[in-house]
Amino acid sequence: MVNIAVTGYGYWGPNLARNFAQTPGARLAAICDLSEANLAKAKSLYPNTALTTDFDAMIADPGIDAVVIATPVSTHAPLAVKALEAGKHVLVEKPLAESSAEAKRVVDAAKAAGKVLLVDHTFVYMGAVQKVRDLIESGELGDLYFFDSVRVNLGLFQHDVSVIWDLAVHDLSIAGYWLPGVPKAVSCTAAAHVDGLPHDVAYLTLIYDNNLIAHIHVNWLSPIKLRTMLVGGSNKMVVFDDLDPVEKIKVYDRGIVKKEDLVGTNQVPLAYRRTGDIWMPQFDMTEALKVEAQHFVRCITEGEKPRTDGEAALRIVRILEAAEQSMKLNGQAVELKED
Amino acid sequence: MVNIAVTGYGYWGPNLARNFAQTPGARLAAICDLSEANLAKAKSLYPNTALTTDFDAMIADPGIDAVVIATPVSTHAPLAVKALEAGKHVLVEKPLAESSAEAKRVVDAAKAAGKVLLVDHTFVYMGAVQKVRDLIESGELGDLYFFDSVRVNLGLFQHDVSVIWDLAVHDLSIAGYWLPGVPKAVSCTAAAHVDGLPHDVAYLTLIYDNNLIAHIHVNWLSPIKLRTMLVGGSNKMVVFDDLDPVEKIKVYDRGIVKKEDLVGTNQVPLAYRRTGDIWMPQFDMTEALKVEAQHFVRCITEGEKPRTDGEAALRIVRILEAAEQSMKLNGQAVELKED
Amino acid sequence: MVNIAVTGYGYWGPNLARNFAQTPGARLAAICDLSEANLAKAKSLYPNTALTTDFDAMIADPGIDAVVIATPVSTHAPLAVKALEAGKHVLVEKPLAESSAEAKRVVDAAKAAGKVLLVDHTFVYMGAVQKVRDLIESGELGDLYFFDSVRVNLGLFQHDVSVIWDLAVHDLSIAGYWLPGVPKAVSCTAAAHVDGLPHDVAYLTLIYDNNLIAHIHVNWLSPIKLRTMLVGGSNKMVVFDDLDPVEKIKVYDRGIVKKEDLVGTNQVPLAYRRTGDIWMPQFDMTEALKVEAQHFVRCITEGEKPRTDGEAALRIVRILEAAEQSMKLNGQAVELKED
Amino acid sequence: MVNIAVTGYGYWGPNLARNFAQTPGARLAAICDLSEANLAKAKSLYPNTALTTDFDAMIADPGIDAVVIATPVSTHAPLAVKALEAGKHVLVEKPLAESSAEAKRVVDAAKAAGKVLLVDHTFVYMGAVQKVRDLIESGELGDLYFFDSVRVNLGLFQHDVSVIWDLAVHDLSIAGYWLPGVPKAVSCTAAAHVDGLPHDVAYLTLIYDNNLIAHIHVNWLSPIKLRTMLVGGSNKMVVFDDLDPVEKIKVYDRGIVKKEDLVGTNQVPLAYRRTGDIWMPQFDMTEALKVEAQHFVRCITEGEKPRTDGEAALRIVRILEAAEQSMKLNGQAVELKED
Repeated sequence: MVNIAVTGYGYWGPNLARNFAQTPGARLAAICDLSEANLAKAKSLYPNTALTTDFDAMIADPGIDAVVIATPVSTHAPLAVKALEAGKHVLVEKPLAESSAEAKRVVDAAKAAGKVLLVDHTFVYMGAVQKVRDLIESGELGDLYFFDSVRVNLGLFQHDVSVIWDLAVHDLSIAGYWLPGVPKAVSCTAAAHVDGLPHDVAYLTLIYDNNLIAHIHVNWLSPIKLRTMLVGGSNKMVVFDDLDPVEKIKVYDRGIVKKEDLVGTNQVPLAYRRTGDIWMPQFDMTEALKVEAQHFVRCITEGEKPRTDGEAALRIVRILEAAEQSMKLNGQAVELKED
Repeated sequence: MVNIAVTGYGYWGPNLARNFAQTPGARLAAICDLSEANLAKAKSLYPNTALTTDFDAMIADPGIDAVVIATPVSTHAPLAVKALEAGKHVLVEKPLAESSAEAKRVVDAAKAAGKVLLVDHTFVYMGAVQKVRDLIESGELGDLYFFDSVRVNLGLFQHDVSVIWDLAVHDLSIAGYWLPGVPKAVSCTAAAHVDGLPHDVAYLTLIYDNNLIAHIHVNWLSPIKLRTMLVGGSNKMVVFDDLDPVEKIKVYDRGIVKKEDLVGTNQVPLAYRRTGDIWMPQFDMTEALKVEAQHFVRCITEGEKPRTDGEAALRIVRILEAAEQSMKLNGQAVELKED
Repeated sequence: MVNIAVTGYGYWGPNLARNFAQTPGARLAAICDLSEANLAKAKSLYPNTALTTDFDAMIADPGIDAVVIATPVSTHAPLAVKALEAGKHVLVEKPLAESSAEAKRVVDAAKAAGKVLLVDHTFVYMGAVQKVRDLIESGELGDLYFFDSVRVNLGLFQHDVSVIWDLAVHDLSIAGYWLPGVPKAVSCTAAAHVDGLPHDVAYLTLIYDNNLIAHIHVNWLSPIKLRTMLVGGSNKMVVFDDLDPVEKIKVYDRGIVKKEDLVGTNQVPLAYRRTGDIWMPQFDMTEALKVEAQHFVRCITEGEKPRTDGEAALRIVRILEAAEQSMKLNGQAVELKED
Repeated sequence: MVNIAVTGYGYWGPNLARNFAQTPGARLAAICDLSEANLAKAKSLYPNTALTTDFDAMIADPGIDAVVIATPVSTHAPLAVKALEAGKHVLVEKPLAESSAEAKRVVDAAKAAGKVLLVDHTFVYMGAVQKVRDLIESGELGDLYFFDSVRVNLGLFQHDVSVIWDLAVHDLSIAGYWLPGVPKAVSCTAAAHVDGLPHDVAYLTLIYDNNLIAHIHVNWLSPIKLRTMLVGGSNKMVVFDDLDPVEKIKVYDRGIVKKEDLVGTNQVPLAYRRTGDIWMPQFDMTEALKVEAQHFVRCITEGEKPRTDGEAALRIVRILEAAEQSMKLNGQAVELKED
């Protein structure tokens, strides 16, 4: 039985608590929040769960195996490091940290402690996202050509973080899960339209090896809501529309084929496959957070490899930092370094 | 009566000839093509039109008032300059020329000759495009925030020109017609996936004054065909879907309003208008080329100002050149200079 | 303060209780259910509400002003009559009763008692349905030509009632609210595809005066879910798509105009308006049940006229009965009589 | 070489002539029309085709093998009978005749002459329609439950024929091609909204054996254009949307399964398959009329069985007649008799 302590019971924490309370092999042992009002809400739902405002005391408790952190971003790193150094496994809200330096500290602390570090990039645990990953892994799409994501709507502006930290972080987690290799550089252009508020429209391009290109369009000012991803491959292509209740994933048996016999002629040496079947595969409809909670428990009890681990989360923070830098350079690509 | 000579009777020329043959106040006086086969096709449709393979002789004929050029791009500039220097009005296929230097020569020749120079950016003559322009001009959208265009499909690769010269040229002509002012810089990222063929996926960002940003996504490798433009304003927003036979233009009464009383508080100082009416205005359905042909004749006979003049066409060529340069600089913005 | 007693706390009752508990001017005074388990659920949410298994005792309580009945259909009429005879106002689940004879008993009891009788045809309280009603009332559509509703999906079969009692009842309540006059006759064809289960596909046609025709297609076996209504008028037409989250109501400025000058010629004496604007008006998004609960309270306290009164509900039951009869007559229209 | 004579060169005849002129194994030998103007148009396109205004002389010519009839409906039967009695194979425009009595005369004449009689129900020759037929034939859908077709738009009224003769004739030809067996009875309700003009809205229900039901909704007064067919089977279901340029055919792996163990319990004895894959198969995109012309020639030269023969066309006329009769009987089903 894994004893879970949730810290931060504001907006997202209750969802995490609810799922761990229902996860076989886990026990919602403790909830920590600085607000008594929040704790009162927790009490009515989880009368047998210990409630506290003292994080340090909570992680000092040897009865606690793992800590779930759903506090403001600025506190992610310090709390995560504390918990890891106290020998707890950690699941932390995304983004892992405000800066790559801090994110790195958490990753190093997890390594040093030999504990599980999972970052809550929830989209990666959606059945539909898993399905597309499986299609790519299986080689059905062939060599990947491009990944194009549009995530726009008339959205709630954030005070402190720009649209890329708010929205693109999701696309980056999905791209990281789907695409082979890691991006070498990122180019970003953006605009801000309200004085004193961060960028509300942004365009990111990620450059990969083998001519793979990924592009992300995020926008808080769109009159319509779009959540669409195109993935083009040498063999097949996928359209993922997260807003379509029925036809989320479409696999197109379309593409081009090089015609060697035409190379060097004055014709374009390509044949086009325009009219293949279209297929809409089914996928697991389980709530993503439930899948994630069960996965976290298995990582602890069965040594399963975290699907959204610290390294992946650190990479996402580095991309966001580099994108901010590229904006200042008017879109000039900024190289991404791994350790 | 304006006597029109069409040169180049291959792919697009016949459409231009057909429209001028039916334009009141115009006479399809001559057709020039180097291919006798093409001329034979013309003969069956226009028995009373002079047919020739000799361009120089044709423009030497004082009976000809205007020359329509639908020949390969590399010949646009030399033929246009010749015709202008021979005192003819000129309508030339897009793009105006292969390079901004050549395009400039044509623009200067038109100025020197005091003749009409119209460039065939056909989209600008679509009733729906005109309707959106009118909405913007009227101020109904308020201050413009962004222009976002997606023009993707499993398209025919070109041998010599990349996807931006093939597709983005259309978006640039529309952006040029809709948006206030001219872009100051362009950033472009792109990828090529077939050895020896040009870029097939590209992303352009145009930077304007007043935080207006324009973005164009063109792609020859998309499994689905999209022709969608979003225009966001401070007051209203427009979605233009050129593939929708009925609901091409949607005007959204949505947006944000700054709440001065919240400025400086820890709340985001904005109110959101999410649920206004949506309106689909009607527009003129006349064939764009017909509108353009009639406009060209009026430019000659009534001194109407060319809607797609040489300056606008030159600007588009400069943007395409700068975009190619930006690609080489990994997306770094390249400044755009006007004369 | 109107003291409300809810009887039947199974599937739908909790929704009614929740809304009345939150309705200004109303008090959720009592809940009655035969199941102690159901009462236990109610207790946790409404600690101050009286709970009982004794309906007769509850309605004998002079402190109760109104009774909300959400019990099985077969018990609607007897319970409603009892409550009305006890001098209570009554809100009863749809359909009002299993037969028109029983429904009539309830309507008569309400008249005799001089109490409010409201039937829970929830759709009529949707903001979008109200909006279309307003458009029709205002005369904007002109004379009504037809009402066509499609309500199909791979639905849960009912044991005892056919697809028309399960689904068409909704369309009939909306048609009754939107259309002028009352239907004179109904024709119905249907089919059953599972031995021992009721009809799963049915087509109803309602005949009105002035050539107004209403048609309803209900189907439990459709692979796709559709909830679409077309209303055609001499001036404008409306499409209501209840599944579209954004574009629920579209008003089309289209139609035909009689050309008197062509009458008697060999041309069809009509002009077609095919290309008018399309308009998507906004509407109140309040939960229908909340609107209905507030309306019920105002009917009691301010004498507002019930929007879904006993007569309308009785008419719907009569149409369903007549439709069942028409099925047996292979679609022959069955006349509908009013008292 | 089959020598084809086309009679009637007005609206549809030119399409038939064009296709036969391009059909291998066929020769467009003659064109007959009473209008010299129409013949002039034909002359410019087919200089080597004999042109005449004398139908009798044309069919007296032993050099003519087959006659294609595209004249007004009232003349279909007499001309077809003449041609058949003259020993010619016949392809006649739909509907085969104005009445079942006349249609029967043509069918009998064809039998007596032992010649090919094909009726131009063009839809049956569409690749997509053929594809669905193949899916049904293969048994992939299982037992058929229902066929539901919607064919509505703001259409051109006809002077003389109602909306069912104008539009439903297409759905009847497709239903006849797709569905097993023949309908036993038809029920029809309809309405007319313009004085002196025929019915503009109609609903037909066809009753088949084994609880198969087919329904057709045709409407000249709809603000939107719909061309959608649902086919439900015990194993799979198909949606055919003729207006969707890309996703015309969707095959849903959905349905219900009887749960024998639940029979007699108070649960509905069904399991629901709601989430199977959706598949959009490709199909032949060849122009239907071209396929039909080639088929007609093969019927003549290779004895292929006519896909849209006289019996099928006669059945359609009988259904239309019975539907008109059912309208007068307020929807009462009218039995359909075969010879």
